[in-house]
Amino acid sequence: MSEFRVNRTQLRVRYSETDQMGTFYNSRALEWFECGRTEWLRGSGMSYADMEAKGVMLPLVEAHVKYHSRARYDDLLEIETFARMSGRARVRFEIKIYHSPAGEPVASGWTEHAIVSPEGRVIRPAAWLEEIFGATKGSD
Amino acid sequence: MSEFRVNRTQLRVRYSETDQMGTFYNSRALEWFECGRTEWLRGSGMSYADMEAKGVMLPLVEAHVKYHSRARYDDLLEIETFARMSGRARVRFEIKIYHSPAGEPVASGWTEHAIVSPEGRVIRPAAWLEEIFGATKGSD
Amino acid sequence: MSEFRVNRTQLRVRYSETDQMGTFYNSRALEWFECGRTEWLRGSGMSYADMEAKGVMLPLVEAHVKYHSRARYDDLLEIETFARMSGRARVRFEIKIYHSPAGEPVASGWTEHAIVSPEGRVIRPAAWLEEIFGATKGSD
Amino acid sequence: MSEFRVNRTQLRVRYSETDQMGTFYNSRALEWFECGRTEWLRGSGMSYADMEAKGVMLPLVEAHVKYHSRARYDDLLEIETFARMSGRARVRFEIKIYHSPAGEPVASGWTEHAIVSPEGRVIRPAAWLEEIFGATKGSD
Repeated sequence: MSEFRVNRTQLRVRYSETDQMGTFYNSRALEWFECGRTEWLRGSGMSYADMEAKGVMLPLVEAHVKYHSRARYDDLLEIETFARMSGRARVRFEIKIYHSPAGEPVASGWTEHAIVSPEGRVIRPAAWLEEIFGATKGSD
Repeated sequence: MSEFRVNRTQLRVRYSETDQMGTFYNSRALEWFECGRTEWLRGSGMSYADMEAKGVMLPLVEAHVKYHSRARYDDLLEIETFARMSGRARVRFEIKIYHSPAGEPVASGWTEHAIVSPEGRVIRPAAWLEEIFGATKGSD
Repeated sequence: MSEFRVNRTQLRVRYSETDQMGTFYNSRALEWFECGRTEWLRGSGMSYADMEAKGVMLPLVEAHVKYHSRARYDDLLEIETFARMSGRARVRFEIKIYHSPAGEPVASGWTEHAIVSPEGRVIRPAAWLEEIFGATKGSD
Repeated sequence: MSEFRVNRTQLRVRYSETDQMGTFYNSRALEWFECGRTEWLRGSGMSYADMEAKGVMLPLVEAHVKYHSRARYDDLLEIETFARMSGRARVRFEIKIYHSPAGEPVASGWTEHAIVSPEGRVIRPAAWLEEIFGATKGSD
């Protein structure tokens, strides 16, 4: 089962991502969440670039972020990502960002995504997509 | 009472804010929320720049965004912002972004902010800050 | 002749545009240059959004920026933009960003753009495009 | 001698870095140049974070970018960075960004930096800084 597959990836805080408070600007968390999604999907065997090439796009419909502590320029961060279906027509990513290696949490949250065609029309998830996101099938 | 003061400000979607899906990239909503906060505070008579100069900073502790529809390069958007105290030690901004003048919603959400000193220590909101955010005092 | 048409537009420095040095991060200058181009083109009667809808795109091929002084969060800036053909197959924008109203220069520079189809193929500028960019025609 | 030390580092194009033309937005090149500078300095044994902690800042005074070809979301890029003193009071970084491993150039250019104190005052480069940037001294 893929439901419990967790991806871990690292990045360093860029100077461009800081603000005058001396920590990362708040919207960067959503950009780092994207890095987590990209690497989780790559780990599934189907990258998001491949998925879009197949005509399946996952635009955000909702996002939630909690900010736990500061992260400064050049700090090494670890992004821990987990994903699953959310109902029958959406996918959901849950993400935690930590200082590496100390483990102090920096930001956490989730994003929920529609499954749409390149024209923006909601589409039913194909079997391969449900497989990736670990949909439980059968009697439950 | 200032509790129900709403600020409206406009901006145009920049090309730099779009992504390859042809709409604004998701993290831009948090950057536009900041524009809403900046103008709401200016409307209070105390800009955020003045507030920081007084030693009061409002870092985000939590953010929530819902994405309602696409907004394309050069679209004119209207940001509607409302703010209030959230408990005794936080402030909260609620924000809606619309297409202008049609009124179709683009994104909405809220941000919640700690009240801290330049050193990052949580501080009790001064009377002037409670005044701005419309804290109800006493029996009302 | 349109060659000497100059557009002036204003913007405020966003918190998201600052970095830990307390001034705007260097790449923001290129994003502000885009704001100048957008407003110069709107002033020509043909917005860049309209131009792209007509199948003409102006990707950057070269950019140059000089940084003159700091600009802080919430500072009001004025962008002064001028454009012209550069040879027969490119357009060039020259841009100055000032503090408003004091006039102290913040950044200046230029961007040079190819004229391409949506598929990215270089195309000869149509007459309407040469008109906008003030190509001198005839004996000179 | 360190004059010819070249650093190579890799990054993947983020979705947040694309624009509606389907390639990276032009200002991202300056952000990637920063990644090149950061890694070149780390390779010198003195990271830029350490350098700022020592009270030496390197704000941009001038930047130049040439755009050579498209780079799309999730493309793997290689950044090649070289640095040296520029006159007695400035440092200069020269940067090339390639597709990896194919080697097709994406963007190239340079940035020139003042050497300033945290208060923004131009300072003479210390011996350790000249050492890093490979200043030739005396008759060699």
